[in-house]
Amino acid sequence: MEILRDLMFGRYQVKLEAQWIVGFVDGEGCFHVSVNPHAEMTVGFQVLPEFTVVQHKRDVQILHALKAHFGCGVVRVNHQDRMAYRVRGQEHLRERIIPFFMNHPLKTKKNVEFLKFRDVLFLMEKGAHLTADGLAEIRKITASMNRGTISQDKVRLIGKPIER
Amino acid sequence: MEILRDLMFGRYQVKLEAQWIVGFVDGEGCFHVSVNPHAEMTVGFQVLPEFTVVQHKRDVQILHALKAHFGCGVVRVNHQDRMAYRVRGQEHLRERIIPFFMNHPLKTKKNVEFLKFRDVLFLMEKGAHLTADGLAEIRKITASMNRGTISQDKVRLIGKPIER
Repeated sequence: MEILRDLMFGRYQVKLEAQWIVGFVDGEGCFHVSVNPHAEMTVGFQVLPEFTVVQHKRDVQILHALKAHFGCGVVRVNHQDRMAYRVRGQEHLRERIIPFFMNHPLKTKKNVEFLKFRDVLFLMEKGAHLTADGLAEIRKITASMNRGTISQDKVRLIGKPIER
Repeated sequence: MEILRDLMFGRYQVKLEAQWIVGFVDGEGCFHVSVNPHAEMTVGFQVLPEFTVVQHKRDVQILHALKAHFGCGVVRVNHQDRMAYRVRGQEHLRERIIPFFMNHPLKTKKNVEFLKFRDVLFLMEKGAHLTADGLAEIRKITASMNRGTISQDKVRLIGKPIER
C-alpha cells in the first residue's frame, strides 16, 4: 500500500545502478570549471567547478534519483522546460562525485574532461586558486577543457565562460 | 603484446555492460518510425523503423562497441562531425534490439517511445504495414511518438518526418 501511495503521488524513487549512471553521464553529463572575474578575491578571479546533468522536465525524476544516489547537489530549473542536477560544493565534488567516476570510469572522451576537472579540484584543495601562480595553472587546465563540446544548455546555465 | 598492438592501432574494442548501454541510450538513443510516401508500395507508404545513437566523431569507438554488442547495424557519418550507429533491419530490431531493452528497461520516458516502437514492429511482423487498416493503426502510433523530443541530428539523419 505504501508503494502504491508513493507511485500515485510520484514519490517513487528510481534506483540507479552504477553502470547506468556512467552511461547516462557519458551521454548527458558535464564537468565544467568556470573562472570568473571577482572583485572580492585577492587574485581577482573566482574558480567555480561544477558537475551538471541536464534533462527535459519530463524526466526530472531521473535527476532526483541522481541526487539521491550521490547524496548531494540540487535539482533546479535550467532553461525553459529543461531541468538540471548540479553539484558545486567542493567537498561534495571531491568526496562523492570524483571517487564515483574514479571507481566507475566514463567510457567516452568525457573521461578526459573529468580527469582535468579532478586535477583542478585537487589544486583547489591545496589553495592554488588563491595565488596568482596557482590560478595560472588552473586556467591552463580549464583552457583545454570542453573545447567545442559545451552544450547550449550549459552555456545558458553558467553564462558565457571567459576562458574561451 | 597483442593488446598493446591493438591499442596502438586503435583496434581495442571497448566492452560495454548492459546497464551502461541502457544509461547511454536513455541519454543519446532514439527509437523512430518514419512513414514515407512510396509509389511502389500498394498502400502508397513505406514504414521505416530505426534505432539510432548519434555521437561526435571523437567517440566513434563507442558506436562501434554498440554495433559489436548488438551484432547488427551500421556506423555511418550522420551530419558534419557527427556519427551515427543505426539499426534498420526489422529482423535485427525484433531479435536483438527489442529483447535487449525488454530485459533491461530504459529508465527515462524514452521507454514509452521504445514500447510504441516495439508495437509498430510487432504489427509489421504481421504484415499490417501492407494493408490500409494496418497502416492507419501504425500511423496512429507513430503520430504519438517523439513529439517535440526529436533531436536536430535526428531530423538531419532521416529528413523531415511527414507524421507531424
